[in-house]
Amino acid sequence: MEALWLAVGSVAAALTTLGFVPQVIKMWRTKSVGDLSALTFAQFFAGVTLWTFYGFHLGDPVVLVSNFVMLGNLLVAIVLFARYRRRGPG
Amino acid sequence: MEALWLAVGSVAAALTTLGFVPQVIKMWRTKSVGDLSALTFAQFFAGVTLWTFYGFHLGDPVVLVSNFVMLGNLLVAIVLFARYRRRGPG
Repeated sequence: MEALWLAVGSVAAALTTLGFVPQVIKMWRTKSVGDLSALTFAQFFAGVTLWTFYGFHLGDPVVLVSNFVMLGNLLVAIVLFARYRRRGPG
Repeated sequence: MEALWLAVGSVAAALTTLGFVPQVIKMWRTKSVGDLSALTFAQFFAGVTLWTFYGFHLGDPVVLVSNFVMLGNLLVAIVLFARYRRRGPG
């Protein structure tokens, strides 16, 4: 039973850690970001940065690594967002 | 010092739990969702659902409540996304 819960937690962590991957792929393909919220990216970036520090403090490799991976993904998202927003209409 | 880390963890949790709030407000205002990734919403929805179960299993109120709140926010995002996508171009 404990193995099942470990699987639930692991799948949960994988899904949310890589949650912005499809969005990054879509930004890259369409080069269109007008409907995306800059504040949502900023908020996740600040939050996941603090989570990474907190994971380091806890000494918990799952919290540390999953947030660090998500932070890398968010950085790519924010760079693409800044780049394509300038090209957008208006 | 422990109070500082508790603050770091709490602010981190608040930022990511409410991370999609600005995106939901933007969707509501612009009624335009063409640049958003359906897969990112689906992935977060599945992941945060599992996190909620996992928090229940752990008996950890922070994991449980923050994921439950985020789930509500994601539900609103998915309903708005489905509603406005139909109205979009094409």
